[in-house]
Amino acid sequence: MSKLVVRAFSISLDGYGAALEQSLENPFGKGGMVLPQWAFPTRTFQKMFGKEDGETGVDEDFAGRSFENIGAWILGRNMFGPVRGPWPDDHWKGWWGDTPPYHVPVFVLTHHARPSIEMKGGTTFHFVTDGIDSALRQAREAAGGKDVRVGGGVATVRQYLAKRLIDEMHLAQTPVLLGSGESLFAGLDLAGLGYACTDRVSSARATHLTVTKQG
Amino acid sequence: MSKLVVRAFSISLDGYGAALEQSLENPFGKGGMVLPQWAFPTRTFQKMFGKEDGETGVDEDFAGRSFENIGAWILGRNMFGPVRGPWPDDHWKGWWGDTPPYHVPVFVLTHHARPSIEMKGGTTFHFVTDGIDSALRQAREAAGGKDVRVGGGVATVRQYLAKRLIDEMHLAQTPVLLGSGESLFAGLDLAGLGYACTDRVSSARATHLTVTKQG
Repeated sequence: MSKLVVRAFSISLDGYGAALEQSLENPFGKGGMVLPQWAFPTRTFQKMFGKEDGETGVDEDFAGRSFENIGAWILGRNMFGPVRGPWPDDHWKGWWGDTPPYHVPVFVLTHHARPSIEMKGGTTFHFVTDGIDSALRQAREAAGGKDVRVGGGVATVRQYLAKRLIDEMHLAQTPVLLGSGESLFAGLDLAGLGYACTDRVSSARATHLTVTKQG
Repeated sequence: MSKLVVRAFSISLDGYGAALEQSLENPFGKGGMVLPQWAFPTRTFQKMFGKEDGETGVDEDFAGRSFENIGAWILGRNMFGPVRGPWPDDHWKGWWGDTPPYHVPVFVLTHHARPSIEMKGGTTFHFVTDGIDSALRQAREAAGGKDVRVGGGVATVRQYLAKRLIDEMHLAQTPVLLGSGESLFAGLDLAGLGYACTDRVSSARATHLTVTKQG
């Protein structure tokens, strides 16, 4: 069955999925680029950067799996870019250049309508203005039986968790303290919502935690 | 040099050091007894329970080390017991029976004065009514050059961290979601205070994280 999943979602030791003050230079907020570092040396990410080599092992297992059987993505507006409010023009097309690493339809949550953008490599960005349920409906339709992955950011993941819509979530906890930022957990009673940690594997760079919806 | 340390302090995956609704039956709050489970099978804790055997390995390394070179303890009122407000009588003498596992002077933070209690095995409970700085001063004096350990609970550890008084903190993160409780991290900018995670070791039951004051 098609699942709604979160994969390779990096958090700090103190539970932050992003630092504050996101900008063009700091997609993860000021000081937040430390969060996804565990993934960059992996074969999956090195390939994405156009390199031939890359590490195998636990981190690669999780990085590789994070793109498996994904038929569509859902992204929050801030994960798509640093632009806020109405789109000033059609210039901004995501952080990822001409060929984004999605290769499937991507549904971007926003309050401001915008025509879809077809990118190279099979990625099309669709802009959804009528909420997370609509985005999920459209993404499931587009995914054709495959899983739908919520890419982030924190606020978007929290919204889907709060409605108990996420089936499985892989968190990569990096052993760093951010001190402030967007907390994945604060005020969100994941245990009460029926989520449990079902797996934990450590690598040299991260602790990989799998959180699964029970029952 | 004598250090102020936190050792074997258990937190959940979502950063809670205790669940809500502490009571006589639930010293760690309702559902919170899952937090320290990693420690109970260790040789150090089994000995404390009067058993001969007990596991060795990573968990035992941390459990054993948590009692090494400790000359005095500081406990918050709630870690000492579930009684709130003025002491109704002298009946309550801690969770630990006649022979508490401290074997050194223990300074209990409270707003309500009470005479010291000498227990079996070298533990004396002293009640400190004039704040955390006074408790630390008295504990350092009593420790005679050894380290002072802040036992908990969460609020007490946070107060000493916020004043940058803790030198080193060992957290045992249990892979469970509590969903609610007393958060160690919320609103406390440990990175900004100059703390960093300097070590991470995993066992089958917990991820052991060492947080150290920098500079």
